[in-house]
Amino acid sequence: MRLGLDIGGTKTDAVAVDAHGTLAGRVRLATGWGPDGVARTVLDAVDALVATGVDRGAITSVGVGMPGQVHPGSTHVLHAVNLGIADFDLAAAVGPRLGVPVGVENDVKAAALGADALRGAAGGTMAYLNLGTGIAAGIVSDGVLWRGAHGTAGEVGHIAVDPRGPACTCGQRGCVEALSGGAAIARRWGRPSPLPVVDMLDAADAGDARAVELRSGLMAGVAAAVRILVLTADVDVVVIGGGLSGLGDRLLGGVAAELEASAAASDFMRSLGLVRRIQLLPSGSPAAALGAALVGSTSAPETRETVKHG
Amino acid sequence: MRLGLDIGGTKTDAVAVDAHGTLAGRVRLATGWGPDGVARTVLDAVDALVATGVDRGAITSVGVGMPGQVHPGSTHVLHAVNLGIADFDLAAAVGPRLGVPVGVENDVKAAALGADALRGAAGGTMAYLNLGTGIAAGIVSDGVLWRGAHGTAGEVGHIAVDPRGPACTCGQRGCVEALSGGAAIARRWGRPSPLPVVDMLDAADAGDARAVELRSGLMAGVAAAVRILVLTADVDVVVIGGGLSGLGDRLLGGVAAELEASAAASDFMRSLGLVRRIQLLPSGSPAAALGAALVGSTSAPETRETVKHG
Repeated sequence: MRLGLDIGGTKTDAVAVDAHGTLAGRVRLATGWGPDGVARTVLDAVDALVATGVDRGAITSVGVGMPGQVHPGSTHVLHAVNLGIADFDLAAAVGPRLGVPVGVENDVKAAALGADALRGAAGGTMAYLNLGTGIAAGIVSDGVLWRGAHGTAGEVGHIAVDPRGPACTCGQRGCVEALSGGAAIARRWGRPSPLPVVDMLDAADAGDARAVELRSGLMAGVAAAVRILVLTADVDVVVIGGGLSGLGDRLLGGVAAELEASAAASDFMRSLGLVRRIQLLPSGSPAAALGAALVGSTSAPETRETVKHG
Repeated sequence: MRLGLDIGGTKTDAVAVDAHGTLAGRVRLATGWGPDGVARTVLDAVDALVATGVDRGAITSVGVGMPGQVHPGSTHVLHAVNLGIADFDLAAAVGPRLGVPVGVENDVKAAALGADALRGAAGGTMAYLNLGTGIAAGIVSDGVLWRGAHGTAGEVGHIAVDPRGPACTCGQRGCVEALSGGAAIARRWGRPSPLPVVDMLDAADAGDARAVELRSGLMAGVAAAVRILVLTADVDVVVIGGGLSGLGDRLLGGVAAELEASAAASDFMRSLGLVRRIQLLPSGSPAAALGAALVGSTSAPETRETVKHG
């Protein structure tokens, strides 16, 4: 039994996956703060899965997807600011107590593996585009994550697509994330709301000019990210997940309209069939935790080494 | 002995590579027109290499890089408009007469493999960015070409990076190719010249306002392509080749200045160290023909099959 945990800023989603790749258990719990809190969350999630009937003795690996930078083959998490973590070897902290290999991966990269696995035997090349507070993508080819040279593969959020676009927190202008990231939209919209992007879309539907402009930027930014992923990595499918994917058809329809407009103006764009290549991850999908379970089992050798030294 | 041919719109560069990967011969000849002319060029190039001392009996494969679309594992060339070819099975046409496997690949993809091979044992992940009449890139990871789902991997030329930018022949606006492609610059500059981009740069140096704007767009477009390649595929190095790479330091300096300006404005961009990641392919480099030789030897099994049926 492989366990997979998706550790988010507030909640953690944990699953157990059996030898056939079938979901054998799932729990959700609050995420703790800082290195100790996160390590505690991992142990609590394993206990909670065991409480649902997962046989503790049958657990073969634990994989964790979480925000922050994780170098390939390492279990050190760097710069997970939202979790209060600067540099933390999660596997060294929880591995000895769990007694099984622990793998760690960036959450978007783990979710990309999970989203690919959920496509079943489709194989080929796909991208997972995470639209949340920030924007990043993971690229998977024949079930293997495209890692690149320095761990920045899929960082499409900070590609500038409009030199006169809004300022981005990264210092550039017109980045995809400045146009379409949840935090950037909330900041630019400015009206306090528990769901600022929904509030903005409602206002746009009601004809508010500033909201219409923000909505247009949101769709243009996501469409640009889709074009970039297809034209650079030639992915067959772009699966859209993350918090903003909860907007459902409001998001997908807007992005499709933007892609259709560029296809109407360009034979080349039309030949790419981009509208047919985008998909929304279903709401509540276990993709991220499932991908973490895959990370846990495939990174086992390196992890074992780390645990031994830890 | 593996032979490699880079078939360009006017000239063909052909090399012989021995078992140690050493260049054992090189010839240049004019490229013929249409399917028959291109097939004739391949046979002539092989004869010309034999005339320089290459032992015909020792030739084990012939690889061809040429403009147009080539599906992975196929030897059919599609849409090589500049060569008068709509759909042509080059290996079927020349294979039986050559008596060795013939592999065919898109010229930019072949040049990417060659540029990577010329880096020696560097390995890792690199992109070859071809700045010529048009703009396209090839991505190579650990010596293997990133193929993607439909053969459009590396088509960064048609990523729009400025919604108010110049119209592109593809129907979009502000594509990298509309800003930085040789044909687009020549068209927008408009002044007849054998070397319109050089003429434009000279005029910019002399203070011509329109030339200064075109020069600025050229550098911005190439810098955008570099950022896109690094942030999507996380390539360690971007090797710039193609006709415009003959501009040498005029090009590299301008692109570096553009990348330095964005690094000065953005900690994130600075952390990527993009200026250190760009390189110019040396003028007269045999990268494209060398890459074709690699294609010829690695695509041998599929090619043999095609030749047998042809």
